[in-house]
Amino acid sequence: MKVRRSDRLIDMTRYLLERPHTLVPLTFFSKRYESAKSSISEDLAIVRRTFAQRQTGILETVPGAAGGVRYIPIMGKAEATDFIGAMANRLSETDRLLPGGYVYLSDLLGTPDVLRQIGRLIATQYLDQKVDAVMTVATKGIPIAQSVSQFLNVPFVIVRRDSKITEGSTVSVNYVSASSARIEKMELSKRSLAAGSGVLIVDDFMKGGGTVNGMRSLIAEFDAKLVGISVFAEGNFSGDRMVSDYTSLIRVDEVDTKANTLHAVAGNYMDKNMAKLEELSK
Amino acid sequence: MKVRRSDRLIDMTRYLLERPHTLVPLTFFSKRYESAKSSISEDLAIVRRTFAQRQTGILETVPGAAGGVRYIPIMGKAEATDFIGAMANRLSETDRLLPGGYVYLSDLLGTPDVLRQIGRLIATQYLDQKVDAVMTVATKGIPIAQSVSQFLNVPFVIVRRDSKITEGSTVSVNYVSASSARIEKMELSKRSLAAGSGVLIVDDFMKGGGTVNGMRSLIAEFDAKLVGISVFAEGNFSGDRMVSDYTSLIRVDEVDTKANTLHAVAGNYMDKNMAKLEELSK
Repeated sequence: MKVRRSDRLIDMTRYLLERPHTLVPLTFFSKRYESAKSSISEDLAIVRRTFAQRQTGILETVPGAAGGVRYIPIMGKAEATDFIGAMANRLSETDRLLPGGYVYLSDLLGTPDVLRQIGRLIATQYLDQKVDAVMTVATKGIPIAQSVSQFLNVPFVIVRRDSKITEGSTVSVNYVSASSARIEKMELSKRSLAAGSGVLIVDDFMKGGGTVNGMRSLIAEFDAKLVGISVFAEGNFSGDRMVSDYTSLIRVDEVDTKANTLHAVAGNYMDKNMAKLEELSK
Repeated sequence: MKVRRSDRLIDMTRYLLERPHTLVPLTFFSKRYESAKSSISEDLAIVRRTFAQRQTGILETVPGAAGGVRYIPIMGKAEATDFIGAMANRLSETDRLLPGGYVYLSDLLGTPDVLRQIGRLIATQYLDQKVDAVMTVATKGIPIAQSVSQFLNVPFVIVRRDSKITEGSTVSVNYVSASSARIEKMELSKRSLAAGSGVLIVDDFMKGGGTVNGMRSLIAEFDAKLVGISVFAEGNFSGDRMVSDYTSLIRVDEVDTKANTLHAVAGNYMDKNMAKLEELSK
């Protein structure tokens, strides 16, 4: 039975939203709704217009026999600025400061709506790069990796500091923790990353960058390529960071351990992505 | 500017899909699209019909001044059967068996599409129960907890076996690992769970049920209430399980450590939820 336009638009929207960065041939929709390709093209033009107006994402058209449409999620400039501002305020709340200059983030990183926004924001930065996998270190980076992986529609891999038999054979590297100056070990399941993969590193919190640096060594061990480094928050670190080229959504700029307060501001995300966000907002 | 119906339907679909289990007042849409409430009601009737036909979910209407609509994601019976069958086949692939009867799952539990289906499936079982938080134990349960939490739109909390300073004060319990008969310790950040919360326990793999049992003690320590226990896969366990009332999507029924193969079948999910799935498919 032929499906009405209104019903097609609703189902198409859902179908595309669930499959970011995936090429869907027009013939697929044409069969699914028993409708002419010309009608499907008109539908997609409406979806494209609405997604653009609401800054939901870009509906890319790939012409030709092997063509189709591809939904690329984005976060627009205004929404990005608002979200980062709101997160900086949340981080500045009292009671978040923990011993050692760490910040309590488990509530934020356990809230689906916050994770969705973080994922969309980080994915926007890498939308035109070849990311084959998102990498993070257990435990707190996992929710961020999972959310980014959803929006880029690629798998994520979890590096561990403790050996677990349920990973099978692993590849391990030693790394120096910049905060404690100790040598530690991290490992990744051997079969989880193919040689040549483009890897995006994400983490919840970066101080000296030792952990991120360890993941970089691990990527080299797998003959994979580093695409970028994105962290939710960067801490206040007195000393040389082991990592210089990274993106942070939030920066903790003042920590008062006596009063037990901290002050957080926007990280370097907006500066690094201003040109792209303005281009996308057109 | 008044927004056209086609554009409204697309944006409304996205808006609702991103906010499961959330009551959205009609006046919100009416303002957002500068359209009459009567038009919005007609739109929502179309969305409801399409969501029902495609088994995307239920669009619930709450009448009255404080009313609105609420989107409840579901997975229909046919899709659930197919997904569980496909997962059982994936688990039966060679090379998944690890020492000790464990199963390599990191690839599946790092794939966004698989996680989305697991989340929808588990959330369907609890759609009419009062779940305030999803609980899991680090590390491998996290992706499942996060996906379920998205579809139920509630926070998730992560229990840890290793103490980390970035959690702040914690509450800990001892538990007996059924597989190794050793006493272990697990802990949860004190501020992560409010007294009286309804808690859904999820995990990737259950053998003797010791870990799940530990989480149950932890829920009692927080004066919270256990709503249910759902695991992705249950292993082959010779002995008394510490947990009897649980739901599993997959069951590993045969393990041949000499040939290094295993055979997986559907768990008890379909049996436990048949009545509900048939009701939802109407």
